[in-house]
Amino acid sequence: MSDAPIASRLVGPVEIVGTGLIGTSIGLACVNAGLEVLLSDVDPHHVRTASGLGAGRRRRAGDRPQLVVVSVPPDHLAEEIRQALEGGAVVTDVGSVKSGPLAAVADADRVDQYVGSHPMAGSERSGPLAATGALFDGRPWAITPGEGASAEAVELVEELARVCGGEPVRLTPEDHDRAVALISHVPHLMAALAASSLHGAPQQHLALSGQGVRDVTRVAAGNPGLYGQIVSANSAAVGELLTGMRDRLDGLIEALASGDRTGLNDLLLLGVAGTQAIPGKHGGPPRSMATLFVAVPDSPGELARLFADAGASDVNIEDVRIDHDPGRPVGLVELLVTEESADRLSQALEYLGWVTHR
Amino acid sequence: MSDAPIASRLVGPVEIVGTGLIGTSIGLACVNAGLEVLLSDVDPHHVRTASGLGAGRRRRAGDRPQLVVVSVPPDHLAEEIRQALEGGAVVTDVGSVKSGPLAAVADADRVDQYVGSHPMAGSERSGPLAATGALFDGRPWAITPGEGASAEAVELVEELARVCGGEPVRLTPEDHDRAVALISHVPHLMAALAASSLHGAPQQHLALSGQGVRDVTRVAAGNPGLYGQIVSANSAAVGELLTGMRDRLDGLIEALASGDRTGLNDLLLLGVAGTQAIPGKHGGPPRSMATLFVAVPDSPGELARLFADAGASDVNIEDVRIDHDPGRPVGLVELLVTEESADRLSQALEYLGWVTHR
Repeated sequence: MSDAPIASRLVGPVEIVGTGLIGTSIGLACVNAGLEVLLSDVDPHHVRTASGLGAGRRRRAGDRPQLVVVSVPPDHLAEEIRQALEGGAVVTDVGSVKSGPLAAVADADRVDQYVGSHPMAGSERSGPLAATGALFDGRPWAITPGEGASAEAVELVEELARVCGGEPVRLTPEDHDRAVALISHVPHLMAALAASSLHGAPQQHLALSGQGVRDVTRVAAGNPGLYGQIVSANSAAVGELLTGMRDRLDGLIEALASGDRTGLNDLLLLGVAGTQAIPGKHGGPPRSMATLFVAVPDSPGELARLFADAGASDVNIEDVRIDHDPGRPVGLVELLVTEESADRLSQALEYLGWVTHR
Repeated sequence: MSDAPIASRLVGPVEIVGTGLIGTSIGLACVNAGLEVLLSDVDPHHVRTASGLGAGRRRRAGDRPQLVVVSVPPDHLAEEIRQALEGGAVVTDVGSVKSGPLAAVADADRVDQYVGSHPMAGSERSGPLAATGALFDGRPWAITPGEGASAEAVELVEELARVCGGEPVRLTPEDHDRAVALISHVPHLMAALAASSLHGAPQQHLALSGQGVRDVTRVAAGNPGLYGQIVSANSAAVGELLTGMRDRLDGLIEALASGDRTGLNDLLLLGVAGTQAIPGKHGGPPRSMATLFVAVPDSPGELARLFADAGASDVNIEDVRIDHDPGRPVGLVELLVTEESADRLSQALEYLGWVTHR
């Protein structure tokens, strides 16, 4: 037996086609792991930037990558995957939708060497300058092989996910697309719908805005061009869910018009059940959490003091939210902690002079 | 001239009818301001709890409040306002909808002494035990007099808002109801619709959930019984906005089915414009903000260390978000700071050994 690497062991080089945020971040993570990384992009300026950041070197004629990662906008995925397969490597892509690209390359030679994937990570910024090797740390990374994919190719792509710090999660392409329609694309569109009413509304009305409307609409601020491509590429799964939404919205409008409290309450109860269906932090079962409110002066250093004091109580803070109050400069900070530890934290903070309430 | 208080000066006693979260919090704030507070509630247990918390004493026969604050569920507002007017005091209520109660008491004697109001504050918890005198600090407090309201009564209710730490904002009842439909009720219903699809979805799909879907759906976890009453009481304004939503949703479904990218992009652009219409913190113009991501081990004390280090850089942190990653226990913390200070904060944190990216 030789010590030569087996096919499913990632030894590089890894080629990155498309050096935007995701591609460059994968390059950085691979370089950090000691792999040789080759970069290509239709925009040579992006390659120079990514290379300058330490994400690899420009691909040259004669280079023979072991694995090609196609990280281009949805509209160009199929053509780049096809071309990469011709070069003899194992190929993955990191597009947000998986059935379409697979179907589009189904007749390609060596299609068994293509394994789609989708790291569940991103940023409101885009381009190589926003990249970081830590982007995928602890994030799920969907691995979506087609039925004919080679087992070695699947293992190689799973190893890429792990090298980048992600957690591989294996799904069929169809299952993946239904999942992201449900937990990403449709919520984004609902946020855009909710936000659409705000445009052009009287300033005096908007001045009453609290944290609720900010949360509901936040994701709708994302890049509309990119999101348009993503949603279009998943239009079947998204359309099916939206049709269900419209039926429920019709029912709601009808219930409001006729004064039917039951119809309204049924939707509100279904909404509560839906929020409880989202898994807890780190994929564990949803734990019983409590919110502690703390009044904090809105000036540098006060949050540091709060967290130092909270840290001294040895309670783990699961989430933090700073309420934006349109009135005077007093911030209300919400600390989310387990139900068991809320009283301990409250007492510790009150003892140190903070005003808290639950 | 005597030193006797003029009618528009709040000297008490203040009666609180309904000692739930809002009523008891107003009681606490008034007591803190040195006012005598009288408490009543259909549930004597609530009065005892509120009184035990220091929010005032039980109302007795013969008490003559200067101002009555009706803080009962929407379905019972009109009857309680009417009864309070009969007692001879100035009356306000703190219900979430304003036109309905005013119309329902329009024929009452002394209706010019009734001035509706609505503090824009609350909590996911309810009942007197969740109350705090700090609940209204810096929050807008809508003051919604009817056309015939006495100027002195309006001033008295505005003074109550200020005594509680709120910022009075004067609106007509109709304007108020359109505003809260826009910035509160409809976003809540859109969140409930978005969440409704998650109930019963496969666990494997939900495991891919990120911060986006959590934000969009968070408010839908609120008390469905109370929200049902609130939305029902504002059904005209809510129904009108929802009908507009349905038209846009129909257009979206149509655009997706026919592959019409323009229709989809128009909605996404409208969504972006909507998020930009929400005013900035403290009512100022929206500033250009930047997000800095910091990797933080998920253990007690690490957030304290981060905020201590961030505090030392003298940059004011406007918002904080801890991403719940379903994978391994590494937390990504997002720090929202002004665009101008992002680089300074990033350099300061990197210097101290934190891994950051933008």
